Amino acid sequence: MVVTSPLLQAVLDALGTLVFAVSGGIVGVRKGLDVFGVLALAAATGLGGGFVRDLAIGAIPPAALDSLLLLGAAVTGGMLAFLLHVPIGRVERWVGMLDAVGLGLFAVVGAVKAADFGIDPAPAALLGMVSGVGGGVIRDVLAGRVPVVLRQEIYAIPALLGAALAVLAYETGTYGTATALAAVAAAATLRIVAMLRGWNAWRAPGTGRT
Amino acid sequence: MVVTSPLLQAVLDALGTLVFAVSGGIVGVRKGLDVFGVLALAAATGLGGGFVRDLAIGAIPPAALDSLLLLGAAVTGGMLAFLLHVPIGRVERWVGMLDAVGLGLFAVVGAVKAADFGIDPAPAALLGMVSGVGGGVIRDVLAGRVPVVLRQEIYAIPALLGAALAVLAYETGTYGTATALAAVAAAATLRIVAMLRGWNAWRAPGTGRT
Amino acid sequence: MVVTSPLLQAVLDALGTLVFAVSGGIVGVRKGLDVFGVLALAAATGLGGGFVRDLAIGAIPPAALDSLLLLGAAVTGGMLAFLLHVPIGRVERWVGMLDAVGLGLFAVVGAVKAADFGIDPAPAALLGMVSGVGGGVIRDVLAGRVPVVLRQEIYAIPALLGAALAVLAYETGTYGTATALAAVAAAATLRIVAMLRGWNAWRAPGTGRT
Repeated sequence: MVVTSPLLQAVLDALGTLVFAVSGGIVGVRKGLDVFGVLALAAATGLGGGFVRDLAIGAIPPAALDSLLLLGAAVTGGMLAFLLHVPIGRVERWVGMLDAVGLGLFAVVGAVKAADFGIDPAPAALLGMVSGVGGGVIRDVLAGRVPVVLRQEIYAIPALLGAALAVLAYETGTYGTATALAAVAAAATLRIVAMLRGWNAWRAPGTGRT
Repeated sequence: MVVTSPLLQAVLDALGTLVFAVSGGIVGVRKGLDVFGVLALAAATGLGGGFVRDLAIGAIPPAALDSLLLLGAAVTGGMLAFLLHVPIGRVERWVGMLDAVGLGLFAVVGAVKAADFGIDPAPAALLGMVSGVGGGVIRDVLAGRVPVVLRQEIYAIPALLGAALAVLAYETGTYGTATALAAVAAAATLRIVAMLRGWNAWRAPGTGRT
Repeated sequence: MVVTSPLLQAVLDALGTLVFAVSGGIVGVRKGLDVFGVLALAAATGLGGGFVRDLAIGAIPPAALDSLLLLGAAVTGGMLAFLLHVPIGRVERWVGMLDAVGLGLFAVVGAVKAADFGIDPAPAALLGMVSGVGGGVIRDVLAGRVPVVLRQEIYAIPALLGAALAVLAYETGTYGTATALAAVAAAATLRIVAMLRGWNAWRAPGTGRT
């Protein structure tokens, strides 16, 4: 059913998995987990969003379990975090930027994979968003904290933007390396700008935190 | 495969989604989340139970991602909670009653949808129960607390009752607006009576809390 | 599609469910949950790993909802924990051993069921591992603690060992009662030895906990 360039999708997917696995692995190191715990949390973070997406679109078995490339990217990301968490921690801001890129990659790949499986445009874009934020939600739930996507101002919206742009390109027959990267860049840029500027969304009236 | 009145199912499903989204949104406001966090938690609460049910019965893509009505109900519930949490908080007891109605709605809709997909009566009733309690479990896990269904005395049992009654009506060919509402009412009533009377179930012998 | 002896699979699966349900029920009793909460946590622990596996291999509806034997095993395990948590608590070390056996049972059953559904050897082994550790992850997330599989040194590795041995036997046409039990024993033995000897895996360099 897949009509999109498999190579493009595979490369973007593996990059997103690697980046998210690093972010999950860093959380694991900071929780004091041992090497297997770090690898498990990295794998759950890197592969979790795509796993949920694949169940929802009927891609059986999920790529997370079936693709040596993705499994290798997840383990590699976990080992990078395990071995290099000290230098990585020194460039915390860059980690946030990498995470923004991962968010964009997963949103675009996830939306286009859903469209490839015959899902309509609107739910395909939503599935792209779920792919993008899902791994981080799983990471945070396993690590015992409220998911970043609930706490941080502008996180799901950039994912939805990237996913919607990717679906638009897909539906107009213009999806390719250039438009895919443009959609990733749009999502990542919005996320990074929101992060750097500390954009705050509204809080509920009457909570004293508006 | 669906043989049940789609309109009846859709109306009950949207009502349940709205009610549960409000309950999730209220939890989000109390956690100090911003508007996007509140909406995300509301959507996860309103749509989560049905999402799991649809994966389990092979309804691909899940209605939670494919139905504008459900998505609209989830967002509306979240915005209601965000804007009106103060007046809603003044009528806390009514929120518990609304939640009981949502529990009954989801249990009935979920059980009948499972039966429509060819699931046998006993697992269909269990899936109705899972639909009813699933959203709340997801809400509480995301919000970092032990799920209400584990802590509160009589919560899953009313859902199972409503689901079992709905399956009974379905299997005897008497499922329709009247029997659906009767099953919802039975579940909601049992939940509300248990809540108002503070019914306690047994605790384990020897824990000093019997 | 199932080519393996259904009786052997069913017996091993029910045993694993029972053992894991006891472990979930014990956690529930210690959390002060009432009888319904204990049963719900026991059922989620005993049935959760297989539920996720069945979604991932397209076994619809999942056996967790469709098999009276598994449902009965889960409820029985929960009631055993509820009624007998005091004597069970006196033999804590035996509980850890039972859990190791459950881990091996689920890993083997899960891997072979995945292979029966046409999943390739490597992802089938991974699915066996997921079946083995999944129930415990769900138990710990619901109970509000970081999953044991992330914190304990050697937990996922024994599951992967048992699953890989089972897939090896399956692919070579030698899977049967003897090889199934050997794979379960290998997984359980590795887990038990790691537990008794307190084997520690490496922690990340520079965390002061190496």
